[in-house]
Amino acid sequence: MTTEPVKLIGAFGSPFVHRVEVALRLKRVPYELILEEDMANKSQLLLNHNPVHKKVPVLLHGDRAIAESLVIVEYVDEAFHELPLLPADPYERAMARFWARFLEEKCLEPLRTALFADGEAQKASMKEARESLAVVEEQLTLRGRRFLGGDAIGLADIAGGGMLAHWLGVVEEVAGVRVLSDDEEEYPALRRWAAEYRSCEAVKECLPDRGRLLSYFAAIREKCVSVANSMVRR
Amino acid sequence: MTTEPVKLIGAFGSPFVHRVEVALRLKRVPYELILEEDMANKSQLLLNHNPVHKKVPVLLHGDRAIAESLVIVEYVDEAFHELPLLPADPYERAMARFWARFLEEKCLEPLRTALFADGEAQKASMKEARESLAVVEEQLTLRGRRFLGGDAIGLADIAGGGMLAHWLGVVEEVAGVRVLSDDEEEYPALRRWAAEYRSCEAVKECLPDRGRLLSYFAAIREKCVSVANSMVRR
Repeated sequence: MTTEPVKLIGAFGSPFVHRVEVALRLKRVPYELILEEDMANKSQLLLNHNPVHKKVPVLLHGDRAIAESLVIVEYVDEAFHELPLLPADPYERAMARFWARFLEEKCLEPLRTALFADGEAQKASMKEARESLAVVEEQLTLRGRRFLGGDAIGLADIAGGGMLAHWLGVVEEVAGVRVLSDDEEEYPALRRWAAEYRSCEAVKECLPDRGRLLSYFAAIREKCVSVANSMVRR
Repeated sequence: MTTEPVKLIGAFGSPFVHRVEVALRLKRVPYELILEEDMANKSQLLLNHNPVHKKVPVLLHGDRAIAESLVIVEYVDEAFHELPLLPADPYERAMARFWARFLEEKCLEPLRTALFADGEAQKASMKEARESLAVVEEQLTLRGRRFLGGDAIGLADIAGGGMLAHWLGVVEEVAGVRVLSDDEEEYPALRRWAAEYRSCEAVKECLPDRGRLLSYFAAIREKCVSVANSMVRR
């Protein structure tokens, strides 16, 4: 099974596809990246292999197809035993899953609203995102390790690292808001963690180019805001 | 580790606490249930052991505390090896996690909105919930097994079983809406699955009394609707 070819259906600019790429690279699993050309006009390959959500990433491993980025990361960790991303101890595994969920639901979800909405919805989500980031800050300080997963990148770091270390700055620029201010003393552990994440070789290899990401999200935001405005005006 | 006492901090009426109880009972792990008296006035025990979310369920296993129901279910499965809830094969494990997430995010979340909101929000969520249930119906039909997990209850069944087999009918009655109609030919596989879930001994032992659940949710809904009305009128 582990010798069968691994293919990843992805799309430019997706932090969820990035999660899977980082997992595969950290575990040194060779893979072929198949990029969707246009997410408004999805390929038959994607529709066939993720009929439920019709979203990237989808991992193809031999004749198996797996969707949902965090489900894929755990699959990769279980299908390929070398260089584990989750610890062996059941409690430590539960903690990794707990923080992965927290980052997904309490940080990334409100950040998405904060960065793609306007007005009151934006303000409320920004506040929620900041409060959640303060909880992550506290956790990182308490643990006193390089990563949430310990000395190496693990599931929870993969869940939030790409977004907080690379995507956030780009989308802040596009949306004209700041979640993290210029004050380096604000969220110091989170900033250190993001820097550690960015400096990891496996991560660097698959971080999308900042300039291209900027134009990509500028186009998305323009579309969102114009749809929102047309709904208000209707 | 596995011989240390297991305690579950729960509260009456929570389908999330039910998930953990079912997991513990299926795996025949003895536990002590500690019920919160009043979720508006949380115990110090709960606040100490789940400072991040301050929610039930929390599992205490020796000196370890684990929060988030699906994280707990996986923890229980990994900390106690007998009578596994997840299959051994990585792909089958991924499928269990995929469907657990689907039930959580695409069925239970919109059902919650459908049952506690009113007007347009209720209508939209009801439509989303029904469409998602049709996807589960299709999956159950395709697999042609008793449960999503195969011949026995697994992670995905635990994620959605309590809500769909027991809570839904109660909350429909309280909200005065119907997600599943009286037409037994609508969602037949889902109905059969719910009946199989309800008839399992481990489940029956920890399903809360229907009458008490009715008064419990009637009180919650009254509070939600009056808060929503006061916000509209402001």
